[in-house]
Amino acid sequence: MHPLDAALQLTALGGDRFTGATSPAYGNMVGPFGGVTSSLLLNAVLQHPQSAGVPVALTVNFVAPIEDGVIELTARAARINRSTQHWIVEAAQGGLVVALATAVLAERRATWSAPQAQAPQDLPAPQELKRLSMAGLPSWTGRYDMRFIGGGLDGGLDGRERADAASCLWVRDDPPRPMDFLSLAAICDSFFPRIFIRRRRPMPAGTVSLTTYFHADEAMLAAQADGYVLGVADALTFRHGFFDQSAQIWSSSGELMASAHQMVYFKD
Amino acid sequence: MHPLDAALQLTALGGDRFTGATSPAYGNMVGPFGGVTSSLLLNAVLQHPQSAGVPVALTVNFVAPIEDGVIELTARAARINRSTQHWIVEAAQGGLVVALATAVLAERRATWSAPQAQAPQDLPAPQELKRLSMAGLPSWTGRYDMRFIGGGLDGGLDGRERADAASCLWVRDDPPRPMDFLSLAAICDSFFPRIFIRRRRPMPAGTVSLTTYFHADEAMLAAQADGYVLGVADALTFRHGFFDQSAQIWSSSGELMASAHQMVYFKD
Repeated sequence: MHPLDAALQLTALGGDRFTGATSPAYGNMVGPFGGVTSSLLLNAVLQHPQSAGVPVALTVNFVAPIEDGVIELTARAARINRSTQHWIVEAAQGGLVVALATAVLAERRATWSAPQAQAPQDLPAPQELKRLSMAGLPSWTGRYDMRFIGGGLDGGLDGRERADAASCLWVRDDPPRPMDFLSLAAICDSFFPRIFIRRRRPMPAGTVSLTTYFHADEAMLAAQADGYVLGVADALTFRHGFFDQSAQIWSSSGELMASAHQMVYFKD
Repeated sequence: MHPLDAALQLTALGGDRFTGATSPAYGNMVGPFGGVTSSLLLNAVLQHPQSAGVPVALTVNFVAPIEDGVIELTARAARINRSTQHWIVEAAQGGLVVALATAVLAERRATWSAPQAQAPQDLPAPQELKRLSMAGLPSWTGRYDMRFIGGGLDGGLDGRERADAASCLWVRDDPPRPMDFLSLAAICDSFFPRIFIRRRRPMPAGTVSLTTYFHADEAMLAAQADGYVLGVADALTFRHGFFDQSAQIWSSSGELMASAHQMVYFKD
């Protein structure tokens, strides 16, 4: 079993209740990698017997530090419409909420479509780039093969402040794994916090709210298979203890698979 | 009383429960303008006796069409931390959920800060621009004085398709009203659906999920007072029944007050 699938395993307790657990393979500095937490809450919706359609929008709020161990989840349908579903997920440890989510699922049908933004062009192929060394970094970073075109962390947090907070990289699961909505949700949070890119110094930082929009459908996921996706991330502003971060995940053929946005707490 | 304050009035029923109502002044094609619904759910959090801090992140999911009339709200603290609060809000009509929200409130303290993105420069002043006529449009549009620099709806939905979906405009409440978190939340959703800008033809479209990040604090709001803010909006992709939309609200002195993102359903 792929370590991501192991990390996302849920036991159905009947009704709206599930139980899962953190996975050492996706450990972060404290508790689990947020991308896997986001995906775990989504999985509770997808595993629910009433679930239908594909994910369109997912918001996960990180309510309190998650400790290594068991996570109790409740996924409740707030409303089941004919072609859309609205879900509320609560994840708890020791009876206290540690994360909560809302998810929108929908039937997606072919309609008039028009991409507006374009993926960055004329980039080196992943094979031409060096993989970022994750030595000394939390274990989750080893679950991603990241090859930076710009805005990487080569040389580590050396305090050499940059003017901008942008990154562009090829990234895929390690070991490679065919992309599905769960791995797409997780990889959307695989971008290092923008403040580390901008200031290049260690400091406490943590996502408080993460929203993921899924533009891919099953066909786009199948075409992507286990290849590298292109990730782009940037911030609009760092201000008074919080910054925003927006990211796009592009397929290897240049289609937008997902866009994600978050607000991140920091302390300097 | 300003019509926005009238539209956002809540009666506390004790505990987590409140009641409000839709307002004809902010009516949309069907039911109320989504920006006021978003703000109404936020207001239930701000009016709650346990509320502390200022809004940092707000996600509102539009679960079902809202009918004109009474709205029952429940605002529940999922977790109260020392300096952050996590809330879940459910709005119902006739016992069925019509909208739900999560909100993060926090104490904001002065820290190292660095704006990254810049507001568009060298723009004409609002007074040099013509106000968009809202003749024939739903009543909420009359509650905003919009002066487009680009990507407006002059000439209406004339079917003359555009290549892009971007807009840039000065906007303020009509009548003018000192900006607070509630009016900022509402104005973040005052951008016309991008598909109307891109295709310039009428079609069913509705926001399913709206996320607002607040970069402003009380001091920035006080400085802005009731002046025009600059709004910028665009979309990344229109695909298979949904498109995304991202917007920024800049203060009249060029500071980022809020950024907002949404996924919108459409039918062609």
